[in-house]
Amino acid sequence: MSTVIRNPPRPEPAVVDALSEFGVATVHEAQGRTGLLDPALRPVWPGARIAGTAVTVSVAPADNWMVHVAVEQCREGDILVVAPTSPSTGGYFGDLLATSARAHGVRGLVIDGGCRDVADLRRMGFPVWARHVSALGTVKETLGDVNLPLVCAGQRVEAGDVLLADDDGVVVVPRLRAAEVLAASRAREEKEAALRRRYAAGELGLDVNGMRERLARKGLVYVDHPETAKPAEDPR
Amino acid sequence: MSTVIRNPPRPEPAVVDALSEFGVATVHEAQGRTGLLDPALRPVWPGARIAGTAVTVSVAPADNWMVHVAVEQCREGDILVVAPTSPSTGGYFGDLLATSARAHGVRGLVIDGGCRDVADLRRMGFPVWARHVSALGTVKETLGDVNLPLVCAGQRVEAGDVLLADDDGVVVVPRLRAAEVLAASRAREEKEAALRRRYAAGELGLDVNGMRERLARKGLVYVDHPETAKPAEDPR
Amino acid sequence: MSTVIRNPPRPEPAVVDALSEFGVATVHEAQGRTGLLDPALRPVWPGARIAGTAVTVSVAPADNWMVHVAVEQCREGDILVVAPTSPSTGGYFGDLLATSARAHGVRGLVIDGGCRDVADLRRMGFPVWARHVSALGTVKETLGDVNLPLVCAGQRVEAGDVLLADDDGVVVVPRLRAAEVLAASRAREEKEAALRRRYAAGELGLDVNGMRERLARKGLVYVDHPETAKPAEDPR
Amino acid sequence: MSTVIRNPPRPEPAVVDALSEFGVATVHEAQGRTGLLDPALRPVWPGARIAGTAVTVSVAPADNWMVHVAVEQCREGDILVVAPTSPSTGGYFGDLLATSARAHGVRGLVIDGGCRDVADLRRMGFPVWARHVSALGTVKETLGDVNLPLVCAGQRVEAGDVLLADDDGVVVVPRLRAAEVLAASRAREEKEAALRRRYAAGELGLDVNGMRERLARKGLVYVDHPETAKPAEDPR
Amino acid sequence: MSTVIRNPPRPEPAVVDALSEFGVATVHEAQGRTGLLDPALRPVWPGARIAGTAVTVSVAPADNWMVHVAVEQCREGDILVVAPTSPSTGGYFGDLLATSARAHGVRGLVIDGGCRDVADLRRMGFPVWARHVSALGTVKETLGDVNLPLVCAGQRVEAGDVLLADDDGVVVVPRLRAAEVLAASRAREEKEAALRRRYAAGELGLDVNGMRERLARKGLVYVDHPETAKPAEDPR
Amino acid sequence: MSTVIRNPPRPEPAVVDALSEFGVATVHEAQGRTGLLDPALRPVWPGARIAGTAVTVSVAPADNWMVHVAVEQCREGDILVVAPTSPSTGGYFGDLLATSARAHGVRGLVIDGGCRDVADLRRMGFPVWARHVSALGTVKETLGDVNLPLVCAGQRVEAGDVLLADDDGVVVVPRLRAAEVLAASRAREEKEAALRRRYAAGELGLDVNGMRERLARKGLVYVDHPETAKPAEDPR
Repeated sequence: MSTVIRNPPRPEPAVVDALSEFGVATVHEAQGRTGLLDPALRPVWPGARIAGTAVTVSVAPADNWMVHVAVEQCREGDILVVAPTSPSTGGYFGDLLATSARAHGVRGLVIDGGCRDVADLRRMGFPVWARHVSALGTVKETLGDVNLPLVCAGQRVEAGDVLLADDDGVVVVPRLRAAEVLAASRAREEKEAALRRRYAAGELGLDVNGMRERLARKGLVYVDHPETAKPAEDPR
Repeated sequence: MSTVIRNPPRPEPAVVDALSEFGVATVHEAQGRTGLLDPALRPVWPGARIAGTAVTVSVAPADNWMVHVAVEQCREGDILVVAPTSPSTGGYFGDLLATSARAHGVRGLVIDGGCRDVADLRRMGFPVWARHVSALGTVKETLGDVNLPLVCAGQRVEAGDVLLADDDGVVVVPRLRAAEVLAASRAREEKEAALRRRYAAGELGLDVNGMRERLARKGLVYVDHPETAKPAEDPR
Repeated sequence: MSTVIRNPPRPEPAVVDALSEFGVATVHEAQGRTGLLDPALRPVWPGARIAGTAVTVSVAPADNWMVHVAVEQCREGDILVVAPTSPSTGGYFGDLLATSARAHGVRGLVIDGGCRDVADLRRMGFPVWARHVSALGTVKETLGDVNLPLVCAGQRVEAGDVLLADDDGVVVVPRLRAAEVLAASRAREEKEAALRRRYAAGELGLDVNGMRERLARKGLVYVDHPETAKPAEDPR
Repeated sequence: MSTVIRNPPRPEPAVVDALSEFGVATVHEAQGRTGLLDPALRPVWPGARIAGTAVTVSVAPADNWMVHVAVEQCREGDILVVAPTSPSTGGYFGDLLATSARAHGVRGLVIDGGCRDVADLRRMGFPVWARHVSALGTVKETLGDVNLPLVCAGQRVEAGDVLLADDDGVVVVPRLRAAEVLAASRAREEKEAALRRRYAAGELGLDVNGMRERLARKGLVYVDHPETAKPAEDPR
Repeated sequence: MSTVIRNPPRPEPAVVDALSEFGVATVHEAQGRTGLLDPALRPVWPGARIAGTAVTVSVAPADNWMVHVAVEQCREGDILVVAPTSPSTGGYFGDLLATSARAHGVRGLVIDGGCRDVADLRRMGFPVWARHVSALGTVKETLGDVNLPLVCAGQRVEAGDVLLADDDGVVVVPRLRAAEVLAASRAREEKEAALRRRYAAGELGLDVNGMRERLARKGLVYVDHPETAKPAEDPR
Repeated sequence: MSTVIRNPPRPEPAVVDALSEFGVATVHEAQGRTGLLDPALRPVWPGARIAGTAVTVSVAPADNWMVHVAVEQCREGDILVVAPTSPSTGGYFGDLLATSARAHGVRGLVIDGGCRDVADLRRMGFPVWARHVSALGTVKETLGDVNLPLVCAGQRVEAGDVLLADDDGVVVVPRLRAAEVLAASRAREEKEAALRRRYAAGELGLDVNGMRERLARKGLVYVDHPETAKPAEDPR
């Protein structure tokens, strides 16, 4: 049976928008190194960063029918998350669907499959993270589901989860953890800003993070290169 | 035996040039979703779109000798289509061959293999679609064929066929179908322009394409999300 | 046992800097078509070309602890060369480590693994050649080695070897051969400049390189296409 | 935080054992073409078919510590389902862990990673479905989770779900659907047995499944080959 | 438009059967190192060797409808050659279709895609060369073609061509060259039998094939290892 | 320049033969988790285990000329280790070369490339570890080196190093470490035999290896599943 779930709960828009100030790497770390989609998903054009709420779409391989169904379920601030039930190199999405999706408030597409019309998408400023760029035509023959939980590029995504995507890839934040992850991202960002200043000033990670003792305990040994060693040198 | 076929018939230049106004995806669809080369062939620098007539070159793996032979057979408006007889990561083509090819009217290269000097090629504006970027040197030891039919990245290509390439990939149009495919591409483009306007205005693919009935007949079911469902809601 | 070798000998800085005037393809050819790293290593942002001396770092998969250790061993003009002991998609390096490395004179990173914060790295102008872009977090649990010889992306690299990287990929030049390879690169570049002029003027590689006789001896045959053949044509 | 969930509910053993009478393909079809793990997971030795209940193990890449933790949670009839949080080619499991697992009732291993000692495992008759065979050593440094839901080779698996594996691959049946899927598998098997007899007798799928009319309606055309066509032939 | 070509011409059965006495490698070499399908096609069970005439089947990705159509066109001695129009991991063929195909004289299957029920196929002795083993269900929604020329795993195949498959892979012999290739295979086999005897007796390929002079002319140099070199040794 | 090094020093035959009593996994662990070749190298037929001394052969892609050269340098107890200078799917080695190699005492082949005639090799009992099975013909045009150090499947191998290969893959042991690694392998094997007995008796790795405290210190938490939890249960 194929099902469309209408009106899944979404998190507070303010939380979603606030998350978009952080990079994917930061948010992934802030939620305990979880939620990162397979790095094989790449932006089809570089430079965008978006956050939005997932409308999930399960499609048959090389069949994009359900994407049309899904657009009707989208609202301002959503991101389409499309996962074929098995891999194919089809080009499920192009400038026409992007035009339609944008008219319904969609901020971008994350797809574990192919995308086409990438020159148009770049011109439109409609961002897509995809496994392939492919012009390969798809059919409209087989049903799938909209807004049921699915696995996309190795991560479980539920409708209403927050997706964050940038040049580093895509991360999913479970809806109910969004506020907590936002706070953790802020904390991490502050900590990193401080580190960045110290590193720029030449301080070493070894010292800033107090790693020397643990390295020594694990057995790390420093040796001078035989060609350059001098009789009496400082032992580090 | 290794053979060079001289003067293969080519289609009307006007037809070829007219095809270059359409994207690869459009032409691929317009000829019945056929002719697309493996999407693993990617532009080595983005933004170009070319159409031209194929000069086919069959080469030994990691051996670019026959590309030199092929350049002599090229004319204004041709595209070199190079297929190794088995895969390798060699860099068969670089700025020197591009300089030579351009001097003989070649518009670009499509190769199921590697290409190098990509910074120079970008600077020259010489477009290449390749499976790899690779500086790996090749040899000149083994013969191949020029202008015999070959399989390049999964598609049969004959000398004189039309190749069209853009950021989405590469499609081959058989020489004798070029005029027909041009007409079909124009028709498709007009239809898509109309669709684009309607989608931009917010109309749904479901309605524009009359999909709702067939979806229902196949068994698609709409259900409100339990957390957001209200007693009496519109049934779609 | 895990070891850090301090102060490996480095080649003359002038030789290293002079090598950076040549492309990776030229240098790879000039040293006898050797030393090219697997073409799967790609620049995370295009357009950079660097040369520098290797500080080698062997890391556990998905563990970037030793990169922190390695930064302390770096000097002006070095390039970090990182090879995990087994493949993983971890993002071992990002803007923080880039900030720290730059403060210690590092010109860039070559890694047979993943890198993150690529938008920041582009902004900083810190070049990286990597197998993946990946935000995937790494741990700091397992020791490795710094400045021991290692295999990175299929090539042996020793501390103090010269690394050259551009949009075509990465090549390693053994330290003791650097001066000789520089001379050979210059010679090759001059030869190529002459070829380029002749090719641009329309001369064929077949003639410029005297290939016709050897092709004929190997058995290459020229045949007119049946549809275009005329009774009496020039036999080439 | 890393967690071990003790005593997850398991389905009736009789249902699990009954499922093992059916092939993976049959069960996958019987539950609506869902639940199949990535076909890249292959048996490390051919010929086994097992069904059992999942004990899920999330491990760090190239770190098998949590497999030791998981064995304690196993009971007669379980299958270990191991998913690294990111891919690596490590050999997480060998004859020692197999000996320990078997002593605690484990019927086999499903792992989205590598396995070693395959000659020993074949000799022991301990079946494993893995992405790689790899002797690569792993460490015991990073925690993970046992019996939390995870994604293994593209499918969500929860502790207590039924896993079925044979030479065709691995399928997961959600615990609460096990009885229903068993019934559907039986129905399908009976239907297939009838089909098999008719096919063996030479009847065609076209007739047995009544496909001819739908094919014609979609536009399938039959044409005699020009070289063999005779003036008046039966039109099919 | 989708088409079924009936009654394509086939070569003499005696020629086909005679070819099956030779290995795939021998026949591939005997026809000038051409015709080998992508080595990624592997036997799903080892030990079979078959030769037969191609019935070609072009299918949509993850859709096996046309295989049912094709079985009706098969005769004693045919081999089904199935190529999806784009890659997918679907399991297009299993024991039911094998039962039906065998009842119509089919000797085996060559598919640039997935196959399932491999334990049953082994038991039946029905040989299959496939890119994947996969239980993934396919649909019956989209038409394709039967007995039109296609590209399968990188090689052009026409209906009536001879396919030869063994543990080394699959080679296609064009119908009209079958007799010539048979003769060349016999000649090669005889030559190899003589070589085998000489090699078994300890003669070297260097001498048997007279390679030493050409190696020396190309510049091969023999050097004693410094640790084992003696003052006066024979120079080879 | 292409070079053949004659008579590289080899380790004591007794040490090599003694190593063959241990599995690849054991030896890899015993030398500190080093030396394992890329697990993509697989036995072309299962069940063999060999140890021998490396004769290294660097070949051009899809060119097996130097294998003929190398056979002359082989002695009783050697293993041919072949690495193309760039990847290709060529079938560099078949039953003829195996016959010749065996006549010169070669125990098997390790190749980062393709091998053919696998049915014959199985019949002969000549073991091969290869990246591909491929019938693809190779040429004899380009020189390479014999017995120079090379990188094969990611590991540095020098002539005279010990190679050990079984169903788990291939490991290289540096010549000068062979005796030490043999001793360490024996020690490890004894330790593992003891562990195996305890595991078979039902003891847990957690207890046998004293892991519980370190797991708790790192933060591992045990929780009863809510559906099965009872009021007062033992806390582990």
